[in-house]
Order: sequence, then C-alpha cells, then structure tokens
Amino acid sequence: MTVPSQNILETFENPFPKRTYTIDTVCPEFTSMCPVTGQPDFGTLTISYIPDQKCVELKSLKLYLQEYRNHGAFYEQVTNLILDALVAATQPRWMKIEAAFTPRGGIRTTVIVEHPDAATE
Amino acid sequence: MTVPSQNILETFENPFPKRTYTIDTVCPEFTSMCPVTGQPDFGTLTISYIPDQKCVELKSLKLYLQEYRNHGAFYEQVTNLILDALVAATQPRWMKIEAAFTPRGGIRTTVIVEHPDAATE
Amino acid sequence: MTVPSQNILETFENPFPKRTYTIDTVCPEFTSMCPVTGQPDFGTLTISYIPDQKCVELKSLKLYLQEYRNHGAFYEQVTNLILDALVAATQPRWMKIEAAFTPRGGIRTTVIVEHPDAATE
Amino acid sequence: MTVPSQNILETFENPFPKRTYTIDTVCPEFTSMCPVTGQPDFGTLTISYIPDQKCVELKSLKLYLQEYRNHGAFYEQVTNLILDALVAATQPRWMKIEAAFTPRGGIRTTVIVEHPDAATE
Amino acid sequence: MTVPSQNILETFENPFPKRTYTIDTVCPEFTSMCPVTGQPDFGTLTISYIPDQKCVELKSLKLYLQEYRNHGAFYEQVTNLILDALVAATQPRWMKIEAAFTPRGGIRTTVIVEHPDAATE
Amino acid sequence: MTVPSQNILETFENPFPKRTYTIDTVCPEFTSMCPVTGQPDFGTLTISYIPDQKCVELKSLKLYLQEYRNHGAFYEQVTNLILDALVAATQPRWMKIEAAFTPRGGIRTTVIVEHPDAATE
Amino acid sequence: MTVPSQNILETFENPFPKRTYTIDTVCPEFTSMCPVTGQPDFGTLTISYIPDQKCVELKSLKLYLQEYRNHGAFYEQVTNLILDALVAATQPRWMKIEAAFTPRGGIRTTVIVEHPDAATE
Amino acid sequence: MTVPSQNILETFENPFPKRTYTIDTVCPEFTSMCPVTGQPDFGTLTISYIPDQKCVELKSLKLYLQEYRNHGAFYEQVTNLILDALVAATQPRWMKIEAAFTPRGGIRTTVIVEHPDAATE
Amino acid sequence: MTVPSQNILETFENPFPKRTYTIDTVCPEFTSMCPVTGQPDFGTLTISYIPDQKCVELKSLKLYLQEYRNHGAFYEQVTNLILDALVAATQPRWMKIEAAFTPRGGIRTTVIVEHPDAATE
Amino acid sequence: MTVPSQNILETFENPFPKRTYTIDTVCPEFTSMCPVTGQPDFGTLTISYIPDQKCVELKSLKLYLQEYRNHGAFYEQVTNLILDALVAATQPRWMKIEAAFTPRGGIRTTVIVEHPDAATE
Repeated sequence: MTVPSQNILETFENPFPKRTYTIDTVCPEFTSMCPVTGQPDFGTLTISYIPDQKCVELKSLKLYLQEYRNHGAFYEQVTNLILDALVAATQPRWMKIEAAFTPRGGIRTTVIVEHPDAATE
Repeated sequence: MTVPSQNILETFENPFPKRTYTIDTVCPEFTSMCPVTGQPDFGTLTISYIPDQKCVELKSLKLYLQEYRNHGAFYEQVTNLILDALVAATQPRWMKIEAAFTPRGGIRTTVIVEHPDAATE
Repeated sequence: MTVPSQNILETFENPFPKRTYTIDTVCPEFTSMCPVTGQPDFGTLTISYIPDQKCVELKSLKLYLQEYRNHGAFYEQVTNLILDALVAATQPRWMKIEAAFTPRGGIRTTVIVEHPDAATE
Repeated sequence: MTVPSQNILETFENPFPKRTYTIDTVCPEFTSMCPVTGQPDFGTLTISYIPDQKCVELKSLKLYLQEYRNHGAFYEQVTNLILDALVAATQPRWMKIEAAFTPRGGIRTTVIVEHPDAATE
Repeated sequence: MTVPSQNILETFENPFPKRTYTIDTVCPEFTSMCPVTGQPDFGTLTISYIPDQKCVELKSLKLYLQEYRNHGAFYEQVTNLILDALVAATQPRWMKIEAAFTPRGGIRTTVIVEHPDAATE
Repeated sequence: MTVPSQNILETFENPFPKRTYTIDTVCPEFTSMCPVTGQPDFGTLTISYIPDQKCVELKSLKLYLQEYRNHGAFYEQVTNLILDALVAATQPRWMKIEAAFTPRGGIRTTVIVEHPDAATE
Repeated sequence: MTVPSQNILETFENPFPKRTYTIDTVCPEFTSMCPVTGQPDFGTLTISYIPDQKCVELKSLKLYLQEYRNHGAFYEQVTNLILDALVAATQPRWMKIEAAFTPRGGIRTTVIVEHPDAATE
Repeated sequence: MTVPSQNILETFENPFPKRTYTIDTVCPEFTSMCPVTGQPDFGTLTISYIPDQKCVELKSLKLYLQEYRNHGAFYEQVTNLILDALVAATQPRWMKIEAAFTPRGGIRTTVIVEHPDAATE
Repeated sequence: MTVPSQNILETFENPFPKRTYTIDTVCPEFTSMCPVTGQPDFGTLTISYIPDQKCVELKSLKLYLQEYRNHGAFYEQVTNLILDALVAATQPRWMKIEAAFTPRGGIRTTVIVEHPDAATE
Repeated sequence: MTVPSQNILETFENPFPKRTYTIDTVCPEFTSMCPVTGQPDFGTLTISYIPDQKCVELKSLKLYLQEYRNHGAFYEQVTNLILDALVAATQPRWMKIEAAFTPRGGIRTTVIVEHPDAATE
C-alpha cells in the first residue's frame, strides 16, 4: 500500500519566528477508506502547532488531506502518518493532531498524537 | 455469577509503538442488567488509553460489551471488570474508563476507573 | 417469529374522560435486535395520545417495551407493532409514535406512525 | 383524599381587558407526591392563557402550587386539577397547561390540557 | 403614576412602503421597577412589525425604553403601554410585542400583545 | 457525464402498506465532487417519505449515495437526481429530500425537493 | 448615493425547471456601512427562493454582496435592494430574504422581505 | 432544630477496594425549606468520592436526601451537613459535594465542600 | 463622584468556619451607568469566595448591587470597587469576581479581579 | 505594504494599578482582506491582558481594528501585528490574543499569540 505523498505540502516562512505562538487548524471534511470493508470513513482533524521557521500553507494542506479520499488506512495509521508528514514538512517546535472519526457500529474513536513524543517531556 | 469472557476481545499490533499517543473510544450503547431489580441499565462508556504493543480491535470490543446485555452487575463492578479485561487484553501503558449511567430514581451515577492506579503515580 | 405480547400492557381509567387532552411519553431506553445481523438496535420512542376511557400505566409500558430487548424486528415493523398494541390496549381518540433509532453505517432513521391513519383525516 | 384548595389563588383586574393578549407563566419548581410509591415527583408547569376580566396574581399562584408539595396525585390528575382551579379563579377566554415531569424508570411524561376543550373548536 | 412619554419615539419614512415586509427588533436590556416591592425587573422585548409609512428609529426606541428604568409598572401594563406607544408613533399595518421577564420566586412570565387585536382577524 | 446508476438501490416490501406513515432517514456523510473546481463537496441528506408498497433498504441506499463520492455534480443537480432515483425505485406516496451542503467561500446552501411536485397540491 | 450594481450577478439555467423546489443560501459574512455614523454593520443574510428558469451562481452572489462592504445603507434599504437585485437577475417564482444584523446599543434587528409581496397572496 | 438522621444511609462493600477510583452521583431533585421565609428551595447536588471500604447505596441516599424536603436549612448548612453525614457513613478517601441552588431574587448560589479539607493538602 | 456605600452589606456567621469551602454566587441582573455617555450598562457578576468567619447575606448583596443602578462607573472601576466592598465586609480567605458586560459597539468585555492579589501567591 | 497605524489606539490610566487583574475583550466583528485572493476574511479576536499603568480605551480599539477592513494581511501576520501594537500602546504585564477566523475551503484556523513570549516563562 502506497502512502499519500507529503510532497504536496507547501510551507511559507514564519513571519514572526522569534515568538512562541500557536496555530490551530480544524479540518472537518476529512475522509478516507476503511482498508478492511472498503467503506468510507469520515472525521474531523484538529492540527495544533508552534511553528519554528515554517508555517504550513493551507491550500496545500487541503490538497494533501484529499489524497486520503480514496486511500485505505486504519484510524491509528492515518493519524500518525499525517503527523509524520506535517512534522517533516514544517519542522515545528511542537505539533498535536486530534482525529475524531464518526461512529461505526455505535462506537466512535478519536486518535491523539503529539510531536515531540509526550513521554519525552 | 459468571463474568463475560474477555476471550472475545481481539487486538492488533500497534502500528506506531514508539510514539506515546492516546486513543479515545466512546460507546454510547452500553446496557446491562441490575442484579437486584432485574431491570436493564443503560450507559455510555468512554475508554481512553495509551497503547503499548497492542490496540483493541473495535468490532471485538463491541461484541465483548454486548456480553453484558443480559448480564447482572452493579455499576461499580461492571466498570472495574471491563477495565481489568481490557488491561489484560492490551497491556496498555495507561487506560481510563468513564461509565456514565442514565438516571434511576432521579439520580445518575458515573464511575471512573484508571490503570495503573491513580494513587500510585 | 413470535411478537411480544401486549397482554403485559395495563391501563387505568382516564380520570378526566370528558376533556380532550394529550399525554406525551418519551422512552429513550428502547432496544431491540436486528433480525438480519443479530446486532442490537437502540432508539428513543415518543408516544403521544389523546386518551378516551383508558390511560396506559407507565410501569407496564416499560415492561412491555423491554420484551423487545432480545426480539428481532426491523425499524418499520417494531414501530407499527407497538402502535397496534397500544391502540388495542387503550383505544385512544388519537395516538402517534415517533421512533428515532441511533446511527448505523453513518445513517440514522426515524419512523413515525399515527392512529387513526393520517390519510383518513 | 382532599384536594389543595383553589381559595389560595388571588386575581387582579386585567388592565387591558379589551385586547386579546396572552400571558405565559413557567413554573419549573413544581413538586408533588406519587400516591402509589409515596415518592416525590418533580416537573415544570407552563401555563398560557388569554385573560378576560382577571389575571392570576403570581405570588398566590406560587403558594397554590406549593399546596401539592406533600399531596399525592397522579400526573394526569394533578394537571387537570390545576387547570380546573385556574379556570375557576380567572375565567379566562382560553388557557393551556403543559406539565412536563422528570424521568421515572427511564421514561418521562408530559400532560397537556386546554380550556375550552380542544375538541369543541 | 405618570407614564413614560412616547414623544421620545422618532420615526423615519419607510423606504419601501409598497412592500409588505417585517422588521424584528430584540431588546434584551429592558428593565423597569416592580410597583409593589420597589425591586427592579429585567426582561427581553421582541418587537415585530410590518411598517406602513413609518419605521421606528432605533436610537429613539432605546431612549424610550430607558424611560422605564426607574418607572414602576406591572408586566401586563408595561407590555401593553409600549405596544400602544409604538402603534401611535408608527401606525404599522401589524405589530406584536413579546416581553419575557426573568424569574421571580422560581416563576417566569412572558406577555404577548398584538395590534390589531388578534381576535378581530 | 454519466449518472450513478439507481440499480444499486434495493427495496423491501412495506410491512404495513395500509397505514399512511413516514420514514425519515438522515445521511450526514454525503460527499460528491464540484464539476467546476474538481474539489470535494460535503453535505447532509435528509430523506423523508411515506412508503406505498416498497421501502428503501438502508445498506443499498448507503452504497447508492457512495456512487457520488468521485462523481462531479452541482448541488441542484445532485439533489434532484437522487430524488428521481429514489422515487423510481420505491414509488412512494410522497417524498422530500433536504440536502444541506457545508460552507464554500463563506456561503452555505441547502436544496429542498419534493415529490409529487409541491405546486400540484 | 449610488447602489451596488446587480450586473455582477450571474445566473445558470435551472437544471430541473419543471419541479417546484427551494434553494436556501446562508451568507453569514455580510458587512456594510452605517450611512449616519460611518461605522461598519455586520449581518447574516438568508436567501430562500423557488427558481423558475434561472438559478443564481454562488460566486457571483458572493462578489455582489461584497459590493456593500464600503457602501453606506440602512438595514431596511439594504435588504430591500438586495431582494430587488436578485429578483431582477433570476426572476424566481418566489424569494424571501432574512437579514439578521448584529447588536448595536444593546438592540438587534432582523429585516424580512418577500417577493411576490406577502400581502398579495 | 433537629437534623435529618444519617442512620437512613446504607452502604455496601466496595467491590474493588484496592483500586483508587471515583464515583460521581448527580441528584437534580433536591429540595429543602428556607428557615427564614418558609419557602421551598431547589437544587442539584453533585457528590463525587473515592471509596475506601464502603460505597453509598443509592436508594438509601435518595431517601436520606428526601429527609430535607420539609426541613428548614440555609444553603451553607445543608451542604456541609450532607458532607458530614456521607463522610461518617462511608469513610471515603476523598469526597466533594457541589450544591447548585436555583435563582432567588435574580441571584443563584452554589456551595462547594470537600473532605478532607482542601487547605490540608 | 460618591461611591455606593458598603454599609448596606450584611453578613452572617459562617456555620462551618473550620472547613475550607467555596461559595459561588451569580448575579445576572447587574446594571450601572456609563459615566461618559450616560447610557446604562448591563452585566453578569460571578462572585466566588472561601469564607472565613463571615458569609455575605444574599438579600443585602442584592440591595448593595442595586445601588449601582443609577451610578456612573467604568467597567474596571465598578468591578474593583465591588471586590473591595465585599472583602471589607466579609474578610474572606479568598475572593474572585468576574464581571461580564454585554456588547457595546460590537465589543464585549469581562473584568476579573481577585483577593488576595494573584501575583502574591 | 503599509501597516495600520497604532497611533489610533488610546489608553486611560489603570484605576487599580496595584492589583493584578485581568481584562478580557471579545471582538467578533473583525474583518481584513486576504493579500493573495483579495477576498475578505472574517474572525473573532479575544484579547486578554493584565494591565500595568494603562488600559486600552475600547472605542479607539474598535477604530484601530477597523483599519484592517480594507487591508491585506495573512492570519499569522495580522494577529502578531495587533499584539505588537497593543503591547506598545499599553505596556501590559501580560497579554494574549486568540484570533479565530471563519472557514475557508472547509478549513478554519485560530492563531494564538502571547506577550511576554510563552517560552520565556
């Protein structure tokens, strides 16, 4: 299984790199495919980060997330993969992603990942 | 009184075992029986955990929780039993269960359990 | 497939039979079984009626609805069956049931039935 | 069983008797006793009326409703009795009472009564 | 007891007098005095009208309503008086005022008045 | 441009064809493509109908709606096409679809279609 | 005072002109200038219409509404002007605009206009 | 003034005494009497505790709280008295009570007490 | 400009002075005058404190706050003055006041003051 | 590109400079222009600060923010620029700005900046 390419992600220079500040971005229109059932999954991604030298360009973020539209991936995989891609592209001081998926079988799941690893603090 | 078997619970390998991350799963369709009155109880379970080597497979979680459908248990018992079963199956770094039951006699109760024990931190 | 017996339903004499008034009863703890998948369904029943000579006794209503707990029935069947049972037991001037089921596969359904038939008005 | 006396209810002269207008009064602190179990019931009364010559004085309404605090009565009785008492005291052009009681056994009930009788319109 | 003067109310020419359209104005900062207890009352006025030749100027409306700040009046009086003043000033095709007062003694009241009289329709 | 085939839609026999009753189905996970920009659209479909001889089978409805996932269509087209397909498959006594799409450029749109045509009533 | 030109408004052919259906469009980012104080006003426009031969193209609607950004107009004027412009451009069977403005001086106003005139029905 | 007897309170053995876990119980149907005015007070009690050897039995808790129904007590007294009674009966590791009373004279009050005393931590 | 006298404030003896507990009082009906424009301001005061030997009597609190009804004061002044008055009257272990004022010119302000000074902790 | 001048900002003397207290100001009517597309952006600014010797005068704050109405700036720039301007004008002990912008392309962004820099604490 190939993974959506993070090359789509574009960045721009952080206009205030000396200040420690936070950018929260909410993407309620995320959709991917369940690799087992082939059925679509839907969710809301909340991406929070403290930029260092680069900020993620929002249109490229939208296009990158659309790469998952017809891509099969489990909840845990997809959330960790997106964190890895955004960390590689923007090299932030800190980043957290919360991915809240819609209910399946009466159960709903949210995956929360963080960089650097929460346990290393 | 026999207890629902945790053998129903299945796991899959944590795809990102090196990262300390959290999975929240909300199950609003939990129902068991009151052992005193024989009447059904209803509640919402919120299961949060930091996986180590294993993640709980959601369909098996649903089937495991359905084992309580016709099983008599007090609020405190059922919440602690489910924590023990999920800890045994997934051996997580950390797990918390909040079980919020619907009102009875104008009173509603929530039981909150945690592993490892909150007092040992 | 046998149907839950409406004999469980008890009534009491309408204390104000000369007045045309309405009783709304909401039962958010309804559960039955899907006859295809064997999986439990959950829903909220809202029963509204104008009593004639008899009112439905609420504890017997609760016990009657619990008969569906391990009974397989489709949404449309179960809602129509409960209307028929309550109409037979209380012979109301008018009755309506709205049965709102929880989501399955990202889709949620509500069935609304009325007696006498809405088209005959 | 004696009934709370409507003599407690006081009225004042409608200051604009020529205009057809509506007064809605919401009383969320109503409580009475279940005549079967001896347990307290709680509810919210919403009283709407078009006054004719008299308006109900609110402090006397509060005291009248408090008469039910230790009085046993079924939902349907209590709602109809209060309508009868308020109609007798104020002789309104129209009056409606909605009495929404808190859940018992997972079921909640609202009784809606009207004067003159809805069927006579 | 003198009544706040409606001379404060100013109007402007309806810019589209040929069209039947509605203007809703919500004033959540209304306060007057209870003539019995001398205590302040608080409420939200919702004024809806179909203008004919004149619209009410909003700043003058605000000043007119402030005239009630230290003025004693019962709920029913104050609502009817304001309707009379606004009808006299703007001569609308239709006007309705809903005055929703905050709770006193656990009871809250809304008075709804209309011009021309609802019964004459 | 080809249109998703309504052949995917399956029906089952209405279990209570003599009664005039309503089925509401809410599908919050609808997505299609904008034919101009190639960008995905998202929306919630609410389908209400009075069945005659046939009810729509919910799993086939889900699969039919998924046919639009990579299909380009304007809001007005897609809503009317789905109504036509569901009317053809189930021949209902009455059907209404409300399609509420998420905001684009700060503007959000809902399309509401009905069968038989609202103007013919 | 010149008025924003309705020439900016573009239309497309109604794809289902034989069906009587409704399109609701909500524009929460409307802003204009108060002609008296020179201060900006903010509001949410809800445009509902039954199209005849033409539908309004949404991007051109957005651009048309932006023409009011630095344009001075009273609430009543601006709402009626936009209705006239949209009726001229699309010649709908029916159209209604609700313009809900944010509070000024503790008072908030909504203007509701309709075509054809509500009084002519 | 005598105080409701805590002898009504019953306990059962904590089924998991080795685990540090929390039980939250919400009682929205609390009512007592104001000792000054003789008027009823209403409130919602939220009782949270970490049990040691004993848990409070919920039906006896309901009956104990009903003892206050016709008992005069100030907000601060009643909340502290209930904490003392529950601590004496269950000897918990920790307990907190929040008592939120409904508005009187436009003012609403919540009393929050804790055992062991928050200042000793 | 004279300041409302804190002599109106009455206290009663804290019935449980040995326990460190909190009393929250919410007053949503506060109103004062803007000293610049002469226009009324409206707000909600939330007063939280840990009593030492004295509790504030609620009726006297209501009367004290009413002293501001026709008194001109800026948001920052009025909030600090009320804190000073309540601290002087009750000498609490800790007190915080949040004063949330309604919008003016599209901007709304909340002032939060604390005793002893937050910086001294 | 020139930047809106902070000279518009006026201050007044902090009336209680010895106390460490907080002022929260919410401005839901902020609008600027996207420098790339030339389209307007909309957002809500929440400004929180602990004043030292000066407080910001609210009318001048409103006028300063209006300078951005026809000014092109990215989200990150505009938020940081406003923080710099307010810090320069009021020299607060602490200040935080949260700027929550409305959705674009299904994505919404909030920028949170703080002075002094959060990392220096």
